[in-house]
Amino acid sequence: MLEELKEKVCRANLDLVRHGLVIFTWGNVSAIDRASGLVVIKPSGVSYDNMKPSDMVVVDLDGKVVEGELNPSSDTPTHVELYKAFPNIGGVVHTHSTYATAWAQAGRDIPSLGTTHADYFHDDIPCTRDMSKEEVFGEYEKETGKVIVERFKGMNPDDTPAVLVKNHGPFAWGTDADNAVHNAVVLEAVAKMAFVALSVNDSFTGAKRNPYQSETAPSMNKLLIEKHYSRKHGPNAYYGQKKK
Amino acid sequence: MLEELKEKVCRANLDLVRHGLVIFTWGNVSAIDRASGLVVIKPSGVSYDNMKPSDMVVVDLDGKVVEGELNPSSDTPTHVELYKAFPNIGGVVHTHSTYATAWAQAGRDIPSLGTTHADYFHDDIPCTRDMSKEEVFGEYEKETGKVIVERFKGMNPDDTPAVLVKNHGPFAWGTDADNAVHNAVVLEAVAKMAFVALSVNDSFTGAKRNPYQSETAPSMNKLLIEKHYSRKHGPNAYYGQKKK
Amino acid sequence: MLEELKEKVCRANLDLVRHGLVIFTWGNVSAIDRASGLVVIKPSGVSYDNMKPSDMVVVDLDGKVVEGELNPSSDTPTHVELYKAFPNIGGVVHTHSTYATAWAQAGRDIPSLGTTHADYFHDDIPCTRDMSKEEVFGEYEKETGKVIVERFKGMNPDDTPAVLVKNHGPFAWGTDADNAVHNAVVLEAVAKMAFVALSVNDSFTGAKRNPYQSETAPSMNKLLIEKHYSRKHGPNAYYGQKKK
Amino acid sequence: MLEELKEKVCRANLDLVRHGLVIFTWGNVSAIDRASGLVVIKPSGVSYDNMKPSDMVVVDLDGKVVEGELNPSSDTPTHVELYKAFPNIGGVVHTHSTYATAWAQAGRDIPSLGTTHADYFHDDIPCTRDMSKEEVFGEYEKETGKVIVERFKGMNPDDTPAVLVKNHGPFAWGTDADNAVHNAVVLEAVAKMAFVALSVNDSFTGAKRNPYQSETAPSMNKLLIEKHYSRKHGPNAYYGQKKK
Repeated sequence: MLEELKEKVCRANLDLVRHGLVIFTWGNVSAIDRASGLVVIKPSGVSYDNMKPSDMVVVDLDGKVVEGELNPSSDTPTHVELYKAFPNIGGVVHTHSTYATAWAQAGRDIPSLGTTHADYFHDDIPCTRDMSKEEVFGEYEKETGKVIVERFKGMNPDDTPAVLVKNHGPFAWGTDADNAVHNAVVLEAVAKMAFVALSVNDSFTGAKRNPYQSETAPSMNKLLIEKHYSRKHGPNAYYGQKKK
Repeated sequence: MLEELKEKVCRANLDLVRHGLVIFTWGNVSAIDRASGLVVIKPSGVSYDNMKPSDMVVVDLDGKVVEGELNPSSDTPTHVELYKAFPNIGGVVHTHSTYATAWAQAGRDIPSLGTTHADYFHDDIPCTRDMSKEEVFGEYEKETGKVIVERFKGMNPDDTPAVLVKNHGPFAWGTDADNAVHNAVVLEAVAKMAFVALSVNDSFTGAKRNPYQSETAPSMNKLLIEKHYSRKHGPNAYYGQKKK
Repeated sequence: MLEELKEKVCRANLDLVRHGLVIFTWGNVSAIDRASGLVVIKPSGVSYDNMKPSDMVVVDLDGKVVEGELNPSSDTPTHVELYKAFPNIGGVVHTHSTYATAWAQAGRDIPSLGTTHADYFHDDIPCTRDMSKEEVFGEYEKETGKVIVERFKGMNPDDTPAVLVKNHGPFAWGTDADNAVHNAVVLEAVAKMAFVALSVNDSFTGAKRNPYQSETAPSMNKLLIEKHYSRKHGPNAYYGQKKK
Repeated sequence: MLEELKEKVCRANLDLVRHGLVIFTWGNVSAIDRASGLVVIKPSGVSYDNMKPSDMVVVDLDGKVVEGELNPSSDTPTHVELYKAFPNIGGVVHTHSTYATAWAQAGRDIPSLGTTHADYFHDDIPCTRDMSKEEVFGEYEKETGKVIVERFKGMNPDDTPAVLVKNHGPFAWGTDADNAVHNAVVLEAVAKMAFVALSVNDSFTGAKRNPYQSETAPSMNKLLIEKHYSRKHGPNAYYGQKKK
């Protein structure tokens, strides 16, 4: 059942380790087969060292296990919510990568300060709100998915394929499992750059960035955001080889 | 004598190097055999390159060498104090890992700012008090163990298996040597994330966190701490495979 | 056609990966054959894993492809502008390396704070100005080259072989592709050191560096800059083996 | 001539690369044969990739080449000054390692904030003064040695075997080449920890450390410094295996 997808999802999970985004059993990747509405996801708490495609678990869009010996990732209901709300995405990644997680711990959106960000994410990387007692002690992982979806009201998840769950860590997504991992790697790079950029700026101005955009804060030329995003995405993209 | 435990302790010591927590001869891991009350610990100042199980030293709960050609780690009396005061622990680790040690040098508890922390440590990672002249020039390593134990009055060492010794560095513990190393690795990751999170927050607010929880400081939803800790620990834990 | 140069340029591109300056398909290296006025450059969006010399693209100084199956790097017009304006340079590198890019995101020149900087760069590493709407939505990559050239008015690009493009990232150059890569690696090291140096200084003085050189800011003995630059460069250089 | 020492010095130079303290041709290690008063040092500007013992250069205590085809390191006169002024040292190392160099760029002594520091360095790591025009444009490298020696007036170079040359970088020394490399590695670790510790402290107090020891600054129990230094050094040392 979905053997090819299991192989892809397994390899994408191992790529998280290769890119230095996870240690131990942290992090998980899933992918969806849109035709059948079935999701392939990493099992919960299993070591990456011996992980193989047949360990992957198949669940449906109610989060019920359809195939697999092992428990699916405890974050499975979050993945499922994202697949249901964001119809164009094919893969989802969750990590506790250091810099993106630190931004989530600070409870701050990552501002778009450079083309590295704008090449992949149209907007600031949004951070979700605090969850209520009912959400935390109810169906917590499902509610986590819902606060992500809520945060994307008025935003296009295809243009900005990542989010920070407050005090938790990043989720990223993409057209498939590999693309979601790719976006998770870029998110971590962008989170580190923004941390350093703001610290450097503080050393010069002593001024603090605020949400109302004080003049002393670094901010990016909005035109450059449009330009870079459209250079790689959309009808007039000309980066890479595909259009030749 | 305790050959199997020596092998585990030796391998756990080498894992410290593999995880980037120690250089040179820094750091040490021990484990206890609760049946006999004997502790197996790394020898002092020996290079990791050629370390083998037979180099491990066996001491009793008075810190006296029972078996072994080499001197035990000079921190042995600290390990012994922890085994005596914390009856459920099976392994102890001491490192000078960069970020945890920096927090110890700053003399600050590491605040619980995210689920990465709460998944492993129920409370803030506590930092011990300054030691007195009598403690420093008396049985220093034993007294070091005692100020750790003193710091855990009213706290459960099984729920928060790590401490920062002020101006020194971290100790972590666990159910066995491997689990203690695991907790030491997580502690270092958590210490790095908290450093970055507070620095990022400073760039936005200019406000400083204080022990009385100013509103501008990042802090974590207490509910989330309970949720995440109990998701992995206790009677209703559902992370991983063991409950299936 | 220019087979030897293609091999050099291919290897120089792979060196960017080896030195940790790029991930994925980020970054590009080119070199010019001054005799023919032809530039060899990395193809756009191609993985480093299987890159071979025959993938390199040859363009002329109008940016037109002269040989090659693949699209040249989308940054090709920037490279071409640099070769036209800076007659002594033989190679150009563009990366999104973490610390140099963070400085570009902060929109700050990297101040010369030490001999590591002065050994390679005579002046502060300059950061370009914001680009106008016409520049961004016109021939953007060519205009990027032009704002770099504009920024070097009154500066010698041979003495300070690097620039930060604001909110984008660094370009470095040199006598050939290898030398340009070398300078890009040094730039990243210098950017990291300056970030740490300013942060450390802030911890002591609470004072912020400003462009008017407040006394509490770290700054470098100008004599030392002259000394170190001339120790490695110019008629009386005595570093290394070449003069023997 | 001094073949064994050449081998040791060559290997110690390669250890700098292995420990991540140098890139390219940066950094150099020397050792002295006290019996003959001859110093073996790395050649200037030679790649580490093919470095072999026979490339090492032998100089006397006037800095004159006694044996060797290649130019000695341009920093040779600094090494020689240290050997002349500090009679117990057997090896000297110079690097531009990131964090120690950043402290040198900030022009600050590295304060002793923890036992990692006190285990190896009795005092704060001192930073030298600005050099005069005469010193910089006179016998610069020799004068560099002299300002180091000047800085150690009233300090014991055997107890604190490292220095920061202002706006330049660290020199470390030891009983032989290996011990000097060891101290250079520890210095870099200590410099990184102190950077993080002060930054963390700033996030809590908003207070800045000053040379007059404000109460909000982190500082180390002086007793702990004595204890840790004497635990590893001097007549009553008990760390390691040697006393058994």
